[in-house]
Amino acid sequence: MNELKLLYEGKAKRIYETADEHVLLVQYMDQITALDGLKKEQMASKGALNNQITSLIFEILSDYNVPNHFIKKTSETEQLVKRLHMLPLEVVVRNVAAGSFSKRLGVAEGTPLVRPIIEFYYKNDALHDPIINDDHVVFLDIATDEEIIKIKRRAFEVNEALIRIFESIGIRLVDFKIEFGKDEDGQILLGDEVTPDTCRLWDMDTNERLDKDLYRRDLGDVIPVYKEVLRRLTHIN
Amino acid sequence: MNELKLLYEGKAKRIYETADEHVLLVQYMDQITALDGLKKEQMASKGALNNQITSLIFEILSDYNVPNHFIKKTSETEQLVKRLHMLPLEVVVRNVAAGSFSKRLGVAEGTPLVRPIIEFYYKNDALHDPIINDDHVVFLDIATDEEIIKIKRRAFEVNEALIRIFESIGIRLVDFKIEFGKDEDGQILLGDEVTPDTCRLWDMDTNERLDKDLYRRDLGDVIPVYKEVLRRLTHIN
Repeated sequence: MNELKLLYEGKAKRIYETADEHVLLVQYMDQITALDGLKKEQMASKGALNNQITSLIFEILSDYNVPNHFIKKTSETEQLVKRLHMLPLEVVVRNVAAGSFSKRLGVAEGTPLVRPIIEFYYKNDALHDPIINDDHVVFLDIATDEEIIKIKRRAFEVNEALIRIFESIGIRLVDFKIEFGKDEDGQILLGDEVTPDTCRLWDMDTNERLDKDLYRRDLGDVIPVYKEVLRRLTHIN
Repeated sequence: MNELKLLYEGKAKRIYETADEHVLLVQYMDQITALDGLKKEQMASKGALNNQITSLIFEILSDYNVPNHFIKKTSETEQLVKRLHMLPLEVVVRNVAAGSFSKRLGVAEGTPLVRPIIEFYYKNDALHDPIINDDHVVFLDIATDEEIIKIKRRAFEVNEALIRIFESIGIRLVDFKIEFGKDEDGQILLGDEVTPDTCRLWDMDTNERLDKDLYRRDLGDVIPVYKEVLRRLTHIN
């Protein structure tokens, strides 16, 4: 590992260059953060759990023909991915009202949405990732009008696939945040991660939160529920 | 006036029912507010100025074939308008970066926008008029997808017309907020007002602010500049 060049250190992962210029190594860290970085903690085994969870999910997404950056898991906490030019855009897809959506619009958490809702946030720490609309995305040179249509279509496809995946293990997919990037051909692929850090996952029977809201809202220990999500995912056929 | 029923009192106007159920009387008040109501002041002659300004502008917009609610000015501070079912939506059109756009996206005030940008805000005092996207507009039952397309088209038409009107009197239209409503046939018409309360107007030669930013930002007295806007408007043709 020592020979690899650290490209980027985020809140929950480190990204390294590899010998292949088109391939990056992602290392999931034992760190959890929330509330725009105001809360932050070291948390043993979280990196390994998230790396394993997102690796399994991206493998299944590939089976669903969702174009994505995942190549393979190389250790408990590491994976190889295609190097993408990431768009500075958080794409949030919502199936059930929760979190900032509920606060912004005054809608009770748990209200099902008649159709899924997409939100864009400008990934910019200094500006605190503001919510933006399609016009802003174009103005900021993040994507063209045509690319926005593709991004939304892809996001809905990811949603359809994830709903089915989680449904099959007794979990309701409330909402999630994904990020896209462009490969060298300009194709838009799903990048980043899909984990209980980036999804709201509610147990279908008990409504138990199986995601980072436990940490965000001081509702309990996340490690046991991340373990439970991983356990259920590993038992999908 | 005493026999008219007060329907609604806003921050800058009172709306009364008239003998004709399809017609409302709007009374412009001598009050100015800003910053989500945090700042508020009585200001002599502001009501008369805004009523005269918006009446002139809506007359010209009618000449431009922009469907709108305006019927006629009946006194210095009053006008008659078609009764509309107002959408709880603030439609902001921007030609130059300023105000919340500049803050949200970190763009210097005065930066020209390559193409006009539309923003939607949910008109809801309790939620402090949050910025929303098209999906939210549909979710909140404010408008359908088809109506959103119409609203945006209308907003761009209003922008084109207002740019020309203000350009002809040496004023740069930086941005503005408009509101739409539906008439009894379900047609979407421009309602509310177009005044220096709801527009950012910069003198083309001096960049002097001719709008409510003077009050919002404690930069000076608004009455002289509102008078100047009215003076210029009355000298069109």
